[in-house]
Amino acid sequence: MAVCRLLLLMALFLLTYTVSADPDNLQDLSVKVNGFTCKANITADDFFSSGIAKPGLTNNSMGALVTGANVQRIPGLNTLGVSLARIDYAPGGLNPPHTHPRATEVVFVLEGQLDVGFITTANVLISKTIKQGDVFAFPKGLVHFQKNNGMVPAAVISAFNSQLPGTQSIAATLFAAMPPVPDNVLAKAFMVGTKEVQEVKSRFASA
Amino acid sequence: MAVCRLLLLMALFLLTYTVSADPDNLQDLSVKVNGFTCKANITADDFFSSGIAKPGLTNNSMGALVTGANVQRIPGLNTLGVSLARIDYAPGGLNPPHTHPRATEVVFVLEGQLDVGFITTANVLISKTIKQGDVFAFPKGLVHFQKNNGMVPAAVISAFNSQLPGTQSIAATLFAAMPPVPDNVLAKAFMVGTKEVQEVKSRFASA
Amino acid sequence: MAVCRLLLLMALFLLTYTVSADPDNLQDLSVKVNGFTCKANITADDFFSSGIAKPGLTNNSMGALVTGANVQRIPGLNTLGVSLARIDYAPGGLNPPHTHPRATEVVFVLEGQLDVGFITTANVLISKTIKQGDVFAFPKGLVHFQKNNGMVPAAVISAFNSQLPGTQSIAATLFAAMPPVPDNVLAKAFMVGTKEVQEVKSRFASA
Amino acid sequence: MAVCRLLLLMALFLLTYTVSADPDNLQDLSVKVNGFTCKANITADDFFSSGIAKPGLTNNSMGALVTGANVQRIPGLNTLGVSLARIDYAPGGLNPPHTHPRATEVVFVLEGQLDVGFITTANVLISKTIKQGDVFAFPKGLVHFQKNNGMVPAAVISAFNSQLPGTQSIAATLFAAMPPVPDNVLAKAFMVGTKEVQEVKSRFASA
Amino acid sequence: MAVCRLLLLMALFLLTYTVSADPDNLQDLSVKVNGFTCKANITADDFFSSGIAKPGLTNNSMGALVTGANVQRIPGLNTLGVSLARIDYAPGGLNPPHTHPRATEVVFVLEGQLDVGFITTANVLISKTIKQGDVFAFPKGLVHFQKNNGMVPAAVISAFNSQLPGTQSIAATLFAAMPPVPDNVLAKAFMVGTKEVQEVKSRFASA
Amino acid sequence: MAVCRLLLLMALFLLTYTVSADPDNLQDLSVKVNGFTCKANITADDFFSSGIAKPGLTNNSMGALVTGANVQRIPGLNTLGVSLARIDYAPGGLNPPHTHPRATEVVFVLEGQLDVGFITTANVLISKTIKQGDVFAFPKGLVHFQKNNGMVPAAVISAFNSQLPGTQSIAATLFAAMPPVPDNVLAKAFMVGTKEVQEVKSRFASA
Repeated sequence: MAVCRLLLLMALFLLTYTVSADPDNLQDLSVKVNGFTCKANITADDFFSSGIAKPGLTNNSMGALVTGANVQRIPGLNTLGVSLARIDYAPGGLNPPHTHPRATEVVFVLEGQLDVGFITTANVLISKTIKQGDVFAFPKGLVHFQKNNGMVPAAVISAFNSQLPGTQSIAATLFAAMPPVPDNVLAKAFMVGTKEVQEVKSRFASA
Repeated sequence: MAVCRLLLLMALFLLTYTVSADPDNLQDLSVKVNGFTCKANITADDFFSSGIAKPGLTNNSMGALVTGANVQRIPGLNTLGVSLARIDYAPGGLNPPHTHPRATEVVFVLEGQLDVGFITTANVLISKTIKQGDVFAFPKGLVHFQKNNGMVPAAVISAFNSQLPGTQSIAATLFAAMPPVPDNVLAKAFMVGTKEVQEVKSRFASA
Repeated sequence: MAVCRLLLLMALFLLTYTVSADPDNLQDLSVKVNGFTCKANITADDFFSSGIAKPGLTNNSMGALVTGANVQRIPGLNTLGVSLARIDYAPGGLNPPHTHPRATEVVFVLEGQLDVGFITTANVLISKTIKQGDVFAFPKGLVHFQKNNGMVPAAVISAFNSQLPGTQSIAATLFAAMPPVPDNVLAKAFMVGTKEVQEVKSRFASA
Repeated sequence: MAVCRLLLLMALFLLTYTVSADPDNLQDLSVKVNGFTCKANITADDFFSSGIAKPGLTNNSMGALVTGANVQRIPGLNTLGVSLARIDYAPGGLNPPHTHPRATEVVFVLEGQLDVGFITTANVLISKTIKQGDVFAFPKGLVHFQKNNGMVPAAVISAFNSQLPGTQSIAATLFAAMPPVPDNVLAKAFMVGTKEVQEVKSRFASA
Repeated sequence: MAVCRLLLLMALFLLTYTVSADPDNLQDLSVKVNGFTCKANITADDFFSSGIAKPGLTNNSMGALVTGANVQRIPGLNTLGVSLARIDYAPGGLNPPHTHPRATEVVFVLEGQLDVGFITTANVLISKTIKQGDVFAFPKGLVHFQKNNGMVPAAVISAFNSQLPGTQSIAATLFAAMPPVPDNVLAKAFMVGTKEVQEVKSRFASA
Repeated sequence: MAVCRLLLLMALFLLTYTVSADPDNLQDLSVKVNGFTCKANITADDFFSSGIAKPGLTNNSMGALVTGANVQRIPGLNTLGVSLARIDYAPGGLNPPHTHPRATEVVFVLEGQLDVGFITTANVLISKTIKQGDVFAFPKGLVHFQKNNGMVPAAVISAFNSQLPGTQSIAATLFAAMPPVPDNVLAKAFMVGTKEVQEVKSRFASA
């Protein structure tokens, strides 16, 4: 405990001399931060995780689950600029269109087969069917998705060039945010009526 | 012409010694590049544009128009990491939910009043009504929008920390890409039927 | 208050694991830092400012005033690498030759007309007359200026690719620093006598 | 062919306006570059590789093989700052102590079990036994190794935050470079005789 | 010659896939580039210079001379982000107030004694007398100077965190640029008359 | 003392709003930090060191000593990305093969003559004999060494593009780490017997 306190003081002293620079942001916003447990000595466990060894549960509305192995689970990754995730897909499962605001993603297929794609800012869909052992890259910040159109489960290991890439799942971002995005914004954006917008919102609310 | 050729050769010689590094990407993909005109001598005009002096036409389906003053119009901005844009909004006009994969955006309201918002990766909507002279920031890579709910036109000047920030307008990215994003991906993502997906796609196709 | 304290502790814990990297510096020196108010929850106001909505007072010796909309006023800009400023110019007003050690600047003319210029490291002046709606870029770290040679006030919105670009106004930096730059340094640098140096210093002292 | 030529010219024109900046280097040296095939249109295959789907052959002196899925195989990774590799280990196989001058590495164990470790600049060994599904991180630039002390083959997927991380296998770097590192340098560094140095060199030469 | 041509083509092919990113600029402007000689094979000489071994001539108006050992003399430094310079000072010599737009500088005094200083953006002069063997740092982008107030020559080795830091010597930048900075800009900035401005300009013109 | 405390609080408040980004790491690991003394006001001494003015003692097993002038001695260097070191070599002295995980190094020879070299990732030795006044560059992260094969002492000033470049002396990293690198790892890596490994380890232990 005393050691921990000493380390905190040392951190403070260091920081008296420290001002962060202007590079890529690490979280969406700098106003909110989440701390990690205080540790006096580093060990191998600070660089280790067994959290993505087993398949994640895919019994949700999308039939897919993302499990991170990033700085939130592996504190030693802090400032090192790289992390992993595991994604599991039930047959028919979808990792729905989403973006990572801070990272490019490269996937390695552990098992099964996936239809994957990303869309460029010129609105061109780049897509391909990939199977066990294949590798595919999704450039930083672009909307992308993976769908398991096969009859058996699929899984990938994802690599990111960020310790905490962040994710915005597009449909949930627009139709399930709190407070809600105004109906008239969504209606106009998708060229539908506000009634259709409310219908989609209600499905996300009950999902 | 000879001068231009000499410059090309000089560029080549330089590049024989040059390998780009690993920082943030400047365009979505490095595989496709767009060139700029060859110039032997720089002048003040390489750092100048009058292209956003006048309001843009807002007679489109969204009632809003974005006009860039980036490296594609101001070649001197190349490698300098900053650019501007002007956005005009008709009464009721919407700059629909979109992301910039490579930049934070800060807007200054030239005229009128706007309801603006962005959604965090924790799915929280941060929104506010801003009026002439106000400033608002949209963090890098996050989905955001501006809507003119007023009775008169509105306009903003946008600043980006990228010479070419790129834009993905979410609804068009998903429902108007070519080749198209598969109907079953969109249906599952938005929890609607493929018929509804096709209906939205057809509206974008005829917009 | 308790929430605020908790947040401080969380920040501390995070920082126990954090060492800043070697990128561009955010302030001149890392030894001096200025803190911001502690806030437990972010709101839209952390990304907002109305501080540059109105013209600044230009009744000073230069006839020009710079008003920042940077991280010191908009805490949400922290780590996001972009900021704005508004500059107002009386008729005849001058934003005197200065540099921004950490940013390129791009200006948009809100009203009036300005004679602007920057000097390259090859000692070439790049200058132009710009008017309402025009855009002009000043590359990072280079000496530049704007002068209102018109009969009416002028104003610009400036964008920077830094949350806090910093400014060194050349004449004041050399002739009004405290403690003062030695007379013999300035006399030799400007090829004048120490008497002329003292004369200029006294004018800045009484300005 | 004409299309390809046009693209080359466009690249040239772009580059007339381009000067690379000062960030991390992408290869050891900027003096030597390796080109990639010229392509007029990007396709999904530019972001794809099947080259690490199958185990690599481990019948070499170390009993281990690294197979890259980096920018040399996946041209679309260019400028995106991330890449993968697969490493296979025979029983008793060793990926000998080495460094990556440009990247942190995170491994995911595909099969088998490995004893892994890295040494800090304070000369502390951080090591652990990891098994199928486990994740372990090796900080940028530090000497590290993996050894399969099990009875069955092992394999990992490695993620790097560089499109081309580079590798220096320490023993081969010192004892098998061409031209050779002088015997007296190695003898003094390892506190052995030049005869022992020559003996080790001869084993690498015949390996 | 053929080898050189091949290398050029390889560079081109690489560049077809390459877009420079948005980091710090390497030269003032990206519009003008200077090439280096084409070389087919790297050698130790690409990383070597003997150009700062001897004192530079200080028989100029300032009594000081800067000799660079940067990427223009050492092509292997390209993309590596560091360079050196040697500065020689006659008794009474001055390296006049200047900035480096792209680098922090750290000097090591080879011989003699110097009065050095830099000014912060808060207009505080930080100064000290340093002698043989001493080290002093000048933060990036800030105005600084060194003066030899001793009776014997002085010399320093300067280190920069840029392969080509660039220099703007303030007085020459303002009073000797071509085309010239307008007299009324300088007169107002320095609070003197245009006659005094013209007098200083004429001294620089004849220096 | 009260001032110091206030500064700490201000640093805390700042940090509540600060999250470090993903750039190059400053130390090996972010888990361990070393603090610096708390100072309320900066002075010229924060940017100054006289610690490398005199030759270091070279009466150790390698006949060479490295003395740093980095952020640990010059707190003002914090975030500025550059530092110096002095290396002294007895006749026959060796700065043994080592890497700097976070910096390129450029040396200037103060006195004497050195045989220097680095090895590329293609396993090519780039080497040269350099003498007083010469400059030589060692690219980031690559194994390199300097040996004084002359009859008189030698010394260099080293510049690094990092405030704390870090060093891994290869032989000591492998044969003197604590806890020790397993004998069978080293035996296989160097193609020798475990007996030879233990012999080398014992020499480092008694050095």
